[in-house]
Order: sequence, then structure tokens, then C-alpha cells
Amino acid sequence: MFSLFPDGMTDDNTNFSSLEGSDVGLVSCSSFAFNEPFSFELGGSIPSFKLCYETYGKLNADCSNAILVCHALSGDHHVAGRYTAEDRKPGWWHSIVGPGRPLDTNRYFVLGVNCIGGCRGSTGPGSVNPLTGSPYGLDFPQLTMRDMVRAQYRLVRALGIERLHAVIGGSMGGMQSLLFGTEYPDAVRCVIALACAARQNTQAIAFNEVGRIAILQDPGWQNGRYPVENGPRAGLAVARMLAHITYLSEKSLERRFGRERKAHSAGAGPFGVEFEVESYLRHQGHSFVNRFDANSYLYITKAIDRFDLAGGGALEDAFAPMKARALVVGFSSDWLYPPAQNREIALAMLRAGKNAAYVEVDSSDGHDSFLLPSPLLHQTVRAFLDAVG
Amino acid sequence: MFSLFPDGMTDDNTNFSSLEGSDVGLVSCSSFAFNEPFSFELGGSIPSFKLCYETYGKLNADCSNAILVCHALSGDHHVAGRYTAEDRKPGWWHSIVGPGRPLDTNRYFVLGVNCIGGCRGSTGPGSVNPLTGSPYGLDFPQLTMRDMVRAQYRLVRALGIERLHAVIGGSMGGMQSLLFGTEYPDAVRCVIALACAARQNTQAIAFNEVGRIAILQDPGWQNGRYPVENGPRAGLAVARMLAHITYLSEKSLERRFGRERKAHSAGAGPFGVEFEVESYLRHQGHSFVNRFDANSYLYITKAIDRFDLAGGGALEDAFAPMKARALVVGFSSDWLYPPAQNREIALAMLRAGKNAAYVEVDSSDGHDSFLLPSPLLHQTVRAFLDAVG
Repeated sequence: MFSLFPDGMTDDNTNFSSLEGSDVGLVSCSSFAFNEPFSFELGGSIPSFKLCYETYGKLNADCSNAILVCHALSGDHHVAGRYTAEDRKPGWWHSIVGPGRPLDTNRYFVLGVNCIGGCRGSTGPGSVNPLTGSPYGLDFPQLTMRDMVRAQYRLVRALGIERLHAVIGGSMGGMQSLLFGTEYPDAVRCVIALACAARQNTQAIAFNEVGRIAILQDPGWQNGRYPVENGPRAGLAVARMLAHITYLSEKSLERRFGRERKAHSAGAGPFGVEFEVESYLRHQGHSFVNRFDANSYLYITKAIDRFDLAGGGALEDAFAPMKARALVVGFSSDWLYPPAQNREIALAMLRAGKNAAYVEVDSSDGHDSFLLPSPLLHQTVRAFLDAVG
Repeated sequence: MFSLFPDGMTDDNTNFSSLEGSDVGLVSCSSFAFNEPFSFELGGSIPSFKLCYETYGKLNADCSNAILVCHALSGDHHVAGRYTAEDRKPGWWHSIVGPGRPLDTNRYFVLGVNCIGGCRGSTGPGSVNPLTGSPYGLDFPQLTMRDMVRAQYRLVRALGIERLHAVIGGSMGGMQSLLFGTEYPDAVRCVIALACAARQNTQAIAFNEVGRIAILQDPGWQNGRYPVENGPRAGLAVARMLAHITYLSEKSLERRFGRERKAHSAGAGPFGVEFEVESYLRHQGHSFVNRFDANSYLYITKAIDRFDLAGGGALEDAFAPMKARALVVGFSSDWLYPPAQNREIALAMLRAGKNAAYVEVDSSDGHDSFLLPSPLLHQTVRAFLDAVG
């Protein structure tokens, strides 16, 4: 068995016995089919679409207790719980959702949605185009963060919810939370954005571009028309390995792996696995390829790179329509979306006269800190939601 | 013409008119053939080898004024000057070498050597194995930093130099400077190490590994037996693009490119060039492929990753044999080999009772700062060499 975390941490975020509450138990996912066209911000449309989602807790009588959780690039609708008792891994944000947890399912109806353009059940470039009977591939329209948020809003309305209690997310999910607050000001009471930025910075574009080039140059990509079971696996693995480094921190890598040598080298030859960190990265790349579609990776990273909330203007102007109370959280060791870029969001909200708070959480786990159970993060989210009431 | 630096900086490091001295003019390279075996630290040997080198200035009568310049991963022996008056690009450290410059060719005999294992004229995996008549490929023995330094030492001796006035280098070249001082204590008066580390850190290994995987997974790699003109170009380009990001800084990328869109998109389709930074990176990848061998990239990055001067012991013990005076320079925005890792080197030297100084140069250009003309860097190197006398 491949050991990811030599220091005893587990791979599945279940190491939070010291944290409050209990988990949501067994869950199942649902799908909502929209038999109507969806038009994309940059042009083009699809004749119909579906969104895959999961819910935890109960929607109350006046439909006022819903919290939408927006996922990050590699996430999906499976936010919490397990599908079967044997599932090794729970949902990606299992630690924060459940009875007595910050997203308290005794109080809230929590909703996770796989974004449009994704590959985990919602319609994306890997889905079959009903007009041709073949997967969309590059015929899928170009994607933006606004498209993703608009699709989620359609689902929220379809579920009978006029106003969300909160929208919360980290990384790309944080960007979507911000957009939800500005695009649908009457549809959300509070916005919680973690580990994100109001605009994708140049370095982050650069990293995404290298990942895309790795996919595009893989002969298996075939201009996006690859068979489902045999796509640009090598290129996608490289993209993921690279991105994964940007989600961690030099300190956390040093702490977890240091310069430890792999006892039994997996790869033969002079460039097989030598260091533990190499083994870890190869495992990350390999397992990602089995759960993610390369075209979705291209479309979603492009949507992230295009994200610029201010659109060349002043950021406070972008927040002018927002009515929600807002909480922005940065993480000290996050170098992909550094604390300063998160703080800037809250400051712009304040300049726009909004009710906004900024908290910087001290962490050594880099960008991924927002995914990991942390008492300070949990207390912060809980206190904010309690304060809103 | 592709514009790398929209803010007016040039690509060829010639923007240092405000700096002192003049350049070395036209130069030519030489090659030294060793008709004797070279044994490698990790086992294996080659029956003969050659090293490509360049010199600037004149060796004095007692051979006491030589300065060895060690290059970084993608560098070579062509440190300064131009081969023809039409050459667009001078040597990679043109700004610091020349009459009146810090490595003053009126005083010093400056020597640049392409490392063993390299691909710019010195013997490496792309060279023909005299025993088989074919390129070594993966039959080239595994490489370490000690091998590179030992080969350079052989050349230094072959040129009649018993003791170098100085060894200087940045990044991998800095690691070599440190090793030279500890492996050949009587052969060097001063050591200048810039933007380096006493051990390759985990994150830096991780980035190198992703680059190697990109090459190894390129079908063009063919287990290292690719034709000279048609190797794993796509994989090598990805490796270079990725590495290039780590040589810069978020701030410098933001300043140079921001979120500027490319006016005339080069690539067709939805994933062609959209942002200026993408165009810049693709250009970096493309031009690197035309001047660098993929197997050399694999061998040299592995040698860097294996570098750990203390070898598991205390760093001060590693410096015990060193007799040279030492200067270590870190750059504030270098996140590949951060200032703290450079400072640690100087502190360990001091703990070992050595004559060592540490200077942190304020810069916003990331790891590559050591290559760029900077008044503070130039003053520091000049003052140190003057103080040694």
C-alpha cells in the first residue's frame, strides 16, 4: 500500500477526531436534467444539460436554510459522506459538513453541485452531444466562471430555493462564491470565499498553461476526440503533478517527505522513483487520470484563468451590487492565491460599503489548507454563520 | 518579432548601460580532450571525455589569477562575449565579466566550462560512446554534482592552474562552488555561491521530477535512444516551461505580463495562446528544445536533486575541510532557493570557523536575479574580490 503521509496523516481527511460534530453517514448523488438550452457567456449553447448534485440535511419549510458548496478545480458534488460503508474516502470536505460541524446539517441544507463543464456527472466536453450522438469534445462552448455560477443558480431555483443562506467555496469555489454574490445579489445572504483571488494572477495562469500544453502535446489527446478509456493520460498526469505542487508548500513537502529515499524503487532504470516525494507525485498523477477527464481539465483551467472579477475596472465597483455579508479567508502558506490577494477582496468589499470580514488562518499546508480540518478555520466559519443567524 | 519584455527590458541581458566596465568583445570556445577514463561517483566510467570551455582575460605568470565560473542547469561555457559581431545574444553572464566589471578581465583570467553530462560540447549522454559508435543514451553513468566538479578540476589542472583565485556560480553553479571549496580545499582561494542551497529541497525535487516525467512519457524519448534531431521535444518543452516559472517570481510575472491578452493569437482553436504570459512560456519552451538535449536534462536535474552537501550529517562538518574565504548571496524574491537556505550555508561556514559572509540582495526577479545585472550584486562581488586582494 502506497503511503502518502509518512508522518501519520491520512489521505482521506479523516484525521479530525479532535474536531467537533459527526459525519453525515451514507449519501447518494442526484442528477437534475434541464431540457432547455444553456447559452455560454463567450458564445455558443448546448440544447440541454444536466447537473449532478448531493444534499445533506433537510431543506426547511420556507427554503431559507440552504448552503451551496462550490468545489475547486479537481473537486465535485461529493462534498461529504460515503456512498457505501466500505468507501475508503469520504467526500472532499467531509470534515466541515455534518451534524454539529460548521456546515451543520442539523440546521442547514447543504448542497454540492458538480460544475457545468465538469466530468463527474454534470454536462461537460466528455458528454454526448444530443445533436451528433458523439461526445462534445472541442465542440463544447468555451467556459467561464460565470457560466458555472449561472448553471448552479438554475439548479438552486429548480430545487425551489429563492435565496441561499450562504454560498461557500475555496479556490475556484471561492471565485464562484464571490461571483454568486455579485451576479445574484438577492439570491444569497452570505458569501464565504476561501483561498482564492478576485483575479487569476499571472503565475497561476502560467502554471495552468504548462499543464494544458502537457495535455495538448500528448499524442493521445487527438484534438480532443480521444476515446473515453484511452485519452491523454500521460499529459493529464503531468498537469496534475505540477498543479499538485502548487497546492502544497515548501514546508509541508519538506515535513512530509524531506529527502527520504524510496526503499523499493518502483520504476526501473536510472530515472525511476528515487525519492519519496517522487513516488507521492507519481501516485497523485496516476490516480487523477482515473477520475478526471482531460478536456474538462482544459476547459475548467481556462475558465479559472479568465476569471477577473473587476474586468479591468476597480474591484470595489465589481462588489457594488452585492447584498450579502461576506467572509474572506486567506491561508498564510498559500502561495497560489496568497493571503494578500484574499485580503484585497475583503478590503475592496469594505471600500464598496459592504459588510465584510477577513481572517488569515495560520497554516503550513499551502493552498490545500482550506480543505484540511483546522480548528481555526472551523471556528471562523461557525462564528460567521452564527453571527449571521 | 516576439517581445519578451513589454516593459522595455531586453532578452539578452544587455540593459546595463548604467553599470561599470565594458564587455569582452568577440570570443571563441575551446575543447580539451582527456584521453583517459573518467570514473563516476555512483559507479561506471567512460573511456575518455572532453570538456568545452571559454576563457576571458589572460592567465598571469604564476597562474594565480584564474576565476572559474560554474554554470546553472541550462547554462554552458559561453559566459560572456559574442562569437560574431552579428550575434544577437552574448554569453549568459555577460554583464558581470569584462574589463572593469566585477569579474575584471584586466585582472583575472575567467574560465567557463560546460559541465560533464552536458550537451554544449562537453561529453554527455548525447555524445558517441567510442566503444559502441553510438550515443551513450542511458548507458552514460549516473551523474552527481561531485562528478561535475571533479571534471572541472581536471581541466583546471590541465590548464596549468594549481590554485584558483575564485570559484563562482549561481544555482547549480553555486552548489558546485561550495563543493569545489570542500573537495579541493587547496585549489581555491575564495568561493562565491549565489542563489543556491546546501541541499536540494523537497519542492525543488518535486518540480524537477515533473519535468523528467514529461520527458520520459514523451513517446519521442524512446528510452533515451532518440535521433539527435527528433527527440522528446514536446516533453522537454514542458519541462522547461515549468522550470522557467520557478526561476521568476509572481511579482515579476505580474509586472511583465499581468493579464495582458495576445493581440494576434498564435495557436488556433480554443486552447491557443490567449495571454501574453502563455506566449512567453511557449517561446521559452520552444527555444530551449533547439539548444538542449533531453537526456542531459534528465541527468543534470538528477544530479541537482541528489545534491546534499551535509549528506545527512551537520552542514558545518561538511565545511570543515574548506580553506577558502566564502561569500554567499541570496535574493529576496528567489522562491526556488530562498534566502534562508542561502543564509544557512554562510551560518554553517561560520559555525565551522570559516571566513564567510552572507549578503541578501533585494530583488523582484526571483531565482533568475543572480543572472541579471544589478548594482548591489556587482558591488558585492567586486568588494569581496577586492577584499581578498
